[in-house]
Amino acid sequence: MTTPTRRELGGGLAALALALVSGSPRAAEGAPSASPSAAHDMGMPTGWMGREKIAMLLYPGFTALDLVGPHHMLTSLMGAETRLVARTREPVRSESGLVLVPDASFAEVAADLDIFFVPGGSNGTLAAMKDEETVAFVADRGGRARFVTSVCTGSLILGAAGLLKGYEATSHWTTRSLLPVFGAVPVDRRVVRDRNRITGAGVTAGLDFGLTLVGELRDRLYAETVQLLAEYAPEPPYAAGSPHTAPEPAKQLVEAMLGDFLVRLEAAGREAAARHGVR
Amino acid sequence: MTTPTRRELGGGLAALALALVSGSPRAAEGAPSASPSAAHDMGMPTGWMGREKIAMLLYPGFTALDLVGPHHMLTSLMGAETRLVARTREPVRSESGLVLVPDASFAEVAADLDIFFVPGGSNGTLAAMKDEETVAFVADRGGRARFVTSVCTGSLILGAAGLLKGYEATSHWTTRSLLPVFGAVPVDRRVVRDRNRITGAGVTAGLDFGLTLVGELRDRLYAETVQLLAEYAPEPPYAAGSPHTAPEPAKQLVEAMLGDFLVRLEAAGREAAARHGVR
Repeated sequence: MTTPTRRELGGGLAALALALVSGSPRAAEGAPSASPSAAHDMGMPTGWMGREKIAMLLYPGFTALDLVGPHHMLTSLMGAETRLVARTREPVRSESGLVLVPDASFAEVAADLDIFFVPGGSNGTLAAMKDEETVAFVADRGGRARFVTSVCTGSLILGAAGLLKGYEATSHWTTRSLLPVFGAVPVDRRVVRDRNRITGAGVTAGLDFGLTLVGELRDRLYAETVQLLAEYAPEPPYAAGSPHTAPEPAKQLVEAMLGDFLVRLEAAGREAAARHGVR
Repeated sequence: MTTPTRRELGGGLAALALALVSGSPRAAEGAPSASPSAAHDMGMPTGWMGREKIAMLLYPGFTALDLVGPHHMLTSLMGAETRLVARTREPVRSESGLVLVPDASFAEVAADLDIFFVPGGSNGTLAAMKDEETVAFVADRGGRARFVTSVCTGSLILGAAGLLKGYEATSHWTTRSLLPVFGAVPVDRRVVRDRNRITGAGVTAGLDFGLTLVGELRDRLYAETVQLLAEYAPEPPYAAGSPHTAPEPAKQLVEAMLGDFLVRLEAAGREAAARHGVR
């Protein structure tokens, strides 16, 4: 029986399906490509096997959870290929100190992607917005991708690359008001879709973003099964996750911490917008 | 002015506080140690600066989101040192294909930890439960740690190491019923604490687990500020995150996928329990 590799199937749901099929702790690399017949062998609707090419951007100081929430959901797409792309294949350190190894450099990743994703961060995102090579790469791949997506302040990098002009979008709640710098229309929703632009709010919104996209690319039952496997029935211990519900002292603390940073972000945004003739 | 490094401060909240203090995109390594006076310089309660030593286990096939949710929250603990520990410093591939670089080998991590954390997975977790070196390391560090913690099927590795005997605990909803194999008492809650054992349910429960622990180790306002920065106000697009709310077809699909895997997990659990005299 033809058994697709885990890499070809993605993780989560597919890895478990693979465990069912092969019983092997880890399928061998380089096995025959995933196929509708393989999906059929697994007793799954053939419509559940896709062919998406997905690239997720890594840059120094990115917020790991912005990336890993969506990565968990998107790698459950059987048949999809997800790559982490960075300037080079050198390991990239996240803001919280996680060190990830990219599996593609800017030059190596496919030109035409189904999903191009950009995570956010704080000072690392500011630096990425100022980095011509990164912004040019985002403008190129994002300009051709079927879905152009981000979580948190990743939308500011999309904006700096001129990809949000005339689109509704969101960002981390503290930076959403910067979106007009790029000609975007800020919307106060957790996941905002306008045509093929899908942007998520801060950090943890990536889980809702990713699961929403899984439902769009497969079907509701597929997405519900991914949600059940991820036991995504959240119970935050506090109600402070939104400026609409957080206590004043928490909001004041965040605003005090961010004041100077937001000024620098806006300045970098205006420079980028001017360079790329966004306005 | 003494400025702690981001590594010493952790990411998230602390990185933003650091941005406020230093205005630098990335603080230099090797700067003076974080201190109450540095916290005071940042205009924060000195009680917010801690000294915790945290180690999070990496093993081949671990579920990245099990680890990165808690990592995001725990690295917001100013003054805490969080290390990713694996058998060796060789990069470790997660089930979904993320490749992380550990910053400590089993031999290098501190003997006495404040928090020892074990993520879950599927076939990778089964292999870890059967790996004597991994189980012995978990038994040693877990046996001495101030808090012994896990998310998802990570609790089965704690159990295999004999650390849950006589404790209430949880696991991924599909594997919670295996906990008695290790002498543990299964509890159907998202985060279960019994003395110094804190276990989370499946995958995404790690966010609730991590934020709960932040509140325990600092205070409510600190945790609420971390939650607000992470914009953790979840809006799952479906209500399928729990077996209590998921549609039957999704549950049946998961059970069909897992059947054989659960049999192999239980067998490995019984072997480990026998080896370590848990029962």
